[in-house]
Amino acid sequence: MARLLDAVNSPADLKALTSSQLNQLAEEIRQEIISTVSSCGGHLAANLGVVELTIALHSILDSPRDKIIWDVGHQTYAHKLLTGRRDRFASLRQYGGISGFPRRGESLHDIFGAGHSSTSISAALGLAEARDLSGEDYRVVAVIGDGALGAGLAFEALNHAGHRGTDLLVILNDNEMSIDKNVGALARYLTQLRMDPTLYKARTELENLLKQIPAFGGIVHRVVDKLKDALKQVLVPGMFFEELGFSYYGPLNGHDIGLLRWGLRDALAMKGPVLLHVVTTKGKGHPLAERNPKRYHGIAAASSGDNGRSNSQVFGEMLCRLAKEDDRIVAVTAAMAEGTGLSRFQEQFPDRFFDVGIAEQHALVLAAGLAVGGKRPVVAMYSTFLQRGYDQLIHDICLQELPVVLAIDRSGLVGEDGPTHHGAFDLSFLRIIPGLVIMAPKDGKELEDMLAWAVTHEGPVAICYPRGSLPPLGHEEPILLGRGQRLRTGKDLNFITIGSMVGPCQGAAELLARRGIDAGVVNARFVKPLDVDLIENTPGYLITVEENVLMGGFGSAVREFLPDGRLIGCIGLPDVFVEHGPCPVLHEKYGLTPEAISAYAQKAFSLAREGRKSLG
Amino acid sequence: MARLLDAVNSPADLKALTSSQLNQLAEEIRQEIISTVSSCGGHLAANLGVVELTIALHSILDSPRDKIIWDVGHQTYAHKLLTGRRDRFASLRQYGGISGFPRRGESLHDIFGAGHSSTSISAALGLAEARDLSGEDYRVVAVIGDGALGAGLAFEALNHAGHRGTDLLVILNDNEMSIDKNVGALARYLTQLRMDPTLYKARTELENLLKQIPAFGGIVHRVVDKLKDALKQVLVPGMFFEELGFSYYGPLNGHDIGLLRWGLRDALAMKGPVLLHVVTTKGKGHPLAERNPKRYHGIAAASSGDNGRSNSQVFGEMLCRLAKEDDRIVAVTAAMAEGTGLSRFQEQFPDRFFDVGIAEQHALVLAAGLAVGGKRPVVAMYSTFLQRGYDQLIHDICLQELPVVLAIDRSGLVGEDGPTHHGAFDLSFLRIIPGLVIMAPKDGKELEDMLAWAVTHEGPVAICYPRGSLPPLGHEEPILLGRGQRLRTGKDLNFITIGSMVGPCQGAAELLARRGIDAGVVNARFVKPLDVDLIENTPGYLITVEENVLMGGFGSAVREFLPDGRLIGCIGLPDVFVEHGPCPVLHEKYGLTPEAISAYAQKAFSLAREGRKSLG
Repeated sequence: MARLLDAVNSPADLKALTSSQLNQLAEEIRQEIISTVSSCGGHLAANLGVVELTIALHSILDSPRDKIIWDVGHQTYAHKLLTGRRDRFASLRQYGGISGFPRRGESLHDIFGAGHSSTSISAALGLAEARDLSGEDYRVVAVIGDGALGAGLAFEALNHAGHRGTDLLVILNDNEMSIDKNVGALARYLTQLRMDPTLYKARTELENLLKQIPAFGGIVHRVVDKLKDALKQVLVPGMFFEELGFSYYGPLNGHDIGLLRWGLRDALAMKGPVLLHVVTTKGKGHPLAERNPKRYHGIAAASSGDNGRSNSQVFGEMLCRLAKEDDRIVAVTAAMAEGTGLSRFQEQFPDRFFDVGIAEQHALVLAAGLAVGGKRPVVAMYSTFLQRGYDQLIHDICLQELPVVLAIDRSGLVGEDGPTHHGAFDLSFLRIIPGLVIMAPKDGKELEDMLAWAVTHEGPVAICYPRGSLPPLGHEEPILLGRGQRLRTGKDLNFITIGSMVGPCQGAAELLARRGIDAGVVNARFVKPLDVDLIENTPGYLITVEENVLMGGFGSAVREFLPDGRLIGCIGLPDVFVEHGPCPVLHEKYGLTPEAISAYAQKAFSLAREGRKSLG
Repeated sequence: MARLLDAVNSPADLKALTSSQLNQLAEEIRQEIISTVSSCGGHLAANLGVVELTIALHSILDSPRDKIIWDVGHQTYAHKLLTGRRDRFASLRQYGGISGFPRRGESLHDIFGAGHSSTSISAALGLAEARDLSGEDYRVVAVIGDGALGAGLAFEALNHAGHRGTDLLVILNDNEMSIDKNVGALARYLTQLRMDPTLYKARTELENLLKQIPAFGGIVHRVVDKLKDALKQVLVPGMFFEELGFSYYGPLNGHDIGLLRWGLRDALAMKGPVLLHVVTTKGKGHPLAERNPKRYHGIAAASSGDNGRSNSQVFGEMLCRLAKEDDRIVAVTAAMAEGTGLSRFQEQFPDRFFDVGIAEQHALVLAAGLAVGGKRPVVAMYSTFLQRGYDQLIHDICLQELPVVLAIDRSGLVGEDGPTHHGAFDLSFLRIIPGLVIMAPKDGKELEDMLAWAVTHEGPVAICYPRGSLPPLGHEEPILLGRGQRLRTGKDLNFITIGSMVGPCQGAAELLARRGIDAGVVNARFVKPLDVDLIENTPGYLITVEENVLMGGFGSAVREFLPDGRLIGCIGLPDVFVEHGPCPVLHEKYGLTPEAISAYAQKAFSLAREGRKSLG
C-alpha cells in the first residue's frame, strides 16, 4: 500500500485527508521516525509523543502564514516530515543534513529555532505583538512541554502575555516528563488537573451547566457541601493559568486527532491568550520508549560506539565516593540527573540530591544558599545550559566567594545536537569572573582528582569536561591550585593546552617528532588561575590549543600575560556558531585533530624560525 | 528626648520595647534614613516602605541565628540600623563606607548579599534545606517585593519550594511597584487580593466560618449564586500560591507593627512553605516619595551634580526621533523605562513600547519574536542585568542573526551601587558571541549616530554606554561597520581605546605631549568587528584602554590579532569585583584617569624604548 506520507509535500496536503487517513498518516510518521532515529540517532520519545498533535495542528492551521513555535525543538520530527522535508529526513542530524531542531534557515515553516527550552511563549508573544502592530491577522501558536513550563522564562512570558491580552494560543504538551521525571509544584498541579475526568470540558461550559441545576428544597446543608465540591471543580481547573490572564482549556487526549482538531478550532476562536492543555504519552507507539522515556529521550546513532566510561559516569561515581567521606557534599541538577551522571548519587543520597527541574537560575542560587548553610554543593549542568545562570554565577556565587562546585558537562563540541548545544563558550565566559577557579581535565582520572580537590576548595570552582569519554593519558599528579604539568618538553616548540585537547596535542607532538620538530606538551589543568610560571619557563615557541572559541578563551588568557614573540599561534574554535555533525568530523573541520594541530604547528614554526609574522 | 534608636545595638534590644516604643522607633529610623539618604544618596522609597516590617521581623526573630534574606537588597537600611551599623550609617555608599546593599562581609546579619532582584527565595530554600540536612532548627525568612516576584527566577524557587515542602517563610512585600509601576498578570492578581477587604484573614479561617452558615430553605438558585460568590472568596485568595504548594496568609497592613508581629508569629508557627502577603507603601512617611516613588527610588547624593544630558536621555530622545521615521522600531525594557530613558518613548509610542517587568530573559526572547515578526526591537537594559539574559542573547538572538538592538546602559563603573551593579564585564562576555556587532560611543553625539546606524543593521547589535553623561568630543564622522577613527596621530605611541575612555585618552595624550612624548588616540568605535586595518596601520607603540575587565576584553581583542611587540600594555579593570564609591574615586584607583593613563603610558614607553619587557 502506498504511503499517504509520500504524497504530503506541505501542510496544505493534509486538508484533503479524512479522519481515518489522518490516523493512518500518524502511524506512518511514527514508523518513519522510529526507523530514522534508529539509524541516525536523535530524540525519540518526545517526537513520538506529538505525532497526532502535529498532524492536528497542520491540518487546522495554514503554516507558514500561521506561525507554530515549537519549544525546545526536539519535538519537530513530525513537523519536518509534514513541511517538505520528507526526502531529506534520512539526513537528520548528519553532517550537512537537516537539523534535529527547528532552524530558521532550513524551512519557512521553522519560524523560530530552539534547542534550549522554555523560549516559545516569549517568542510567540513577540510575534503576536508584531502581527497586531502591523495589522495582520495570522495565528500564533506555541507548543510547550510541562517540563519547560516550569522554567522561569516560561513563567515570565505567561505573566506578560496574560497582562497584554494578545491573541495567542499556548499548547501545553503535558507528558509528565522533562527529560527526567518532572519536579516542582506546578507538575503536581498539572497531575491534579489530569486526574479528574470531569474536567474534560472547557470551564465555561461546566459553569453554564451548573447554573441549570434545577431547584430542590430540603436539607440545605448537604446541598452546600455538594455544591461546594461541584464549584471547586468549576473554579479550580486551570485556575493557575486563569489567574495569569489565560483562558484555560482542557485537558484533552493528545493522541486523538479528531478531539484535538475540535479543541484547536475552539481554542483558536477564543480571544486573548488561551492555554490548551493536551495530555500525551512520551514515546507513544514504541513499547520500550513508552515504558522508559528517559532512556529513549535521546538515542545515539546505530553506528556510534562510545568506548569507555563516559565523563558523566566518572563524575557521578566519584561524587558518590566523595559524598561518603564528606557529608557536606550535596548535588544539584536542573532536570539532568541521568544526563549528568547523577542517577547513582540520587539513589545513594536521596536527601542530599536536588533536582530543581528546568530551572538553571534557581539551581545556582539554591546552591549558593546551600553553601551559606555550610554545605558543599556540586551543581552538575551542561555547559550550554549554564549560560542561563550566568548572572547567578557572577552575582550570587562568585561575588560572595561561596564554595560551590560547578561540574560542567558537555563542554566543547557535542556533535549531532549542533549549535544550540555545543559548549563552545564556557572557558571564555567563565574566565571573566573574578575569584572563580576554572579547571579542565585531560582524562577521566584527572576529572576524579579535580573533583576531589574542588570540594575542598574554599571558593567557587568550575570543572569543564566534554561529552563522551576521555581516554586515559597517565601522568597522574596531585592537583595543586593554579599548577599545570609538563607532560613532555619540546626544544623547538610546546603546546600549551587544556582538557580534551591534551590528548590530541600529545598525538601532534608525536607526528611532529617524525618530521624532525621537537615538540612538547604542557597540560595547563587550570584556565584560572593560570600557571604563569610553568608557561614562562617552558622553552621554545608556544602554541595554545583548546576546544573553545578563540575569542577571549584559554589562548587569550595566555596572550594576556605573555605578550612576547614566543607565542606563535592559538588553536581553537573560530568566531562562528559551529554546525551539527559527528564530533570527529567537526574536530577535523576545525583543526582540532592531532594531524591538523601538527600541520598548523609545523607551518607556524617554520614562519617563526624564518623570523616572519606568526599565524595569529 | 533621647532617641530609642541610639540604644539599639542589636536586634536583641528590640525584645524589651513596648508596642508604642516600637512605633516610636519606626519614626526615628524613618527620619534617620531620610536625612542620611538626603546627604549620601541611595534608595529612599523602598527603604521607607519596610521600616515597620523590619522592626517586626527583628523583634520576633533571633538574627543572626534566624536568617533573614532581603531580596534586591536596596531595602535594608532599617535592617542595617538595627543590626549594629547605626554608627557607620552616615558612611552609607561612601567610598570605604557601608554598602547600600546587604553584604556578607559587612555583618553576620547580612546572611545573603543581593543587588539584583528575585534571588531571595532560592537562597532561602537552599539555607532551609541545609538547615534540615544538618538537623538544625533556625528559621529562614525571605523578604521579596511584588515586582521581584514576577521574575522567572522567583517563580522557579516558589515552584521548587512548594514541591519540597520545606519550612520556609516568604514575605511578599507588596507595594505595587518594581522601580516603575508593576506590570504582568501576577501584579493584577495581587491587586485583586488587596482590593477585597474581606480577605484580611487567613483562608482557613474563612473556610471554617463558611462551614458554619446556618441552614435555610427556599430558592436554591439564589443560594447557589450567593454561595458561589462566597466560595470564590474562599477559594481565590492566594490560590495562585496555594497551587504552588505554599500556604497563603494575608494580606496584612505592612505599616502596623502590632498586626505584623501577630501575623509573623502565626506564619512562623505553620509547617511547610508559607507566603505572608504584606501590603506596604513605597516612600511611606515622606510625602513626596509616597506621591512619586519612581522619582524617589534612588536619589543622588546632595553634592553630586551631573552635568549635561545623561546618556540615557540622549538614547531615549534619539530613539523617539528614529521611531518617527521608521515604524518598525519598537522598544523593550525590563522594569526600567525611567532608568534607561524610555519614558518619553513610552508616552509618544505607547503601542510600540513593551515593559515586561523584571524579566530580562523574556525581554530578549520577546525582542527576538518581534524581530521575526518584522519589527526592529531596541532593548534597553543595564549592563549588569543583561547578564541575566546571556543565554537568550546567544541562543535566541545571535544564533538566529535577528536584528535586535541592545542599548546597554550603565556599561562600565556605576559608582555608589557597587559590585552588584558595575557593568564591568560586558565587552568581554559580549565579544565571545558570533555575529554580534558591539559598539561603544565616545560621546553623546556618537551614541546618537550609533543608534541610528544600529536600527538599520540586518543583525544583532549591542551599544554599550556608561552611566551619566559623556562630554562632547567632536570628530563627528559617519558610522561604518567595523570602522574606527583616528582622532590624533602619535609618532611615539597611540592609545587604542573605546567608549568612555576616549576622552581620558585624549587628556592623557595632552599630558604626554607636555612631557615630550607624541601620543595619539584611535577611537575604535567597534569592539566587534574590530578595525584591524586601522590598528595595524597606526604607527608606534600601542596601548589599549577600556573601562571593562582586562580578562577577555577589548585589549584582549586587540592582542588576539596583533601579537607583535608593538602592543606594550593594556589598561582596564583588574580581575576583582570593584567596590562601591564615587566613579571619580574608582577611576583614579583603577588608573582610568588622564593622569593615570599618561603615567602608565610614559613608563611603558620608556621600558619599550629601552627594549625591555612590556608592562603586560
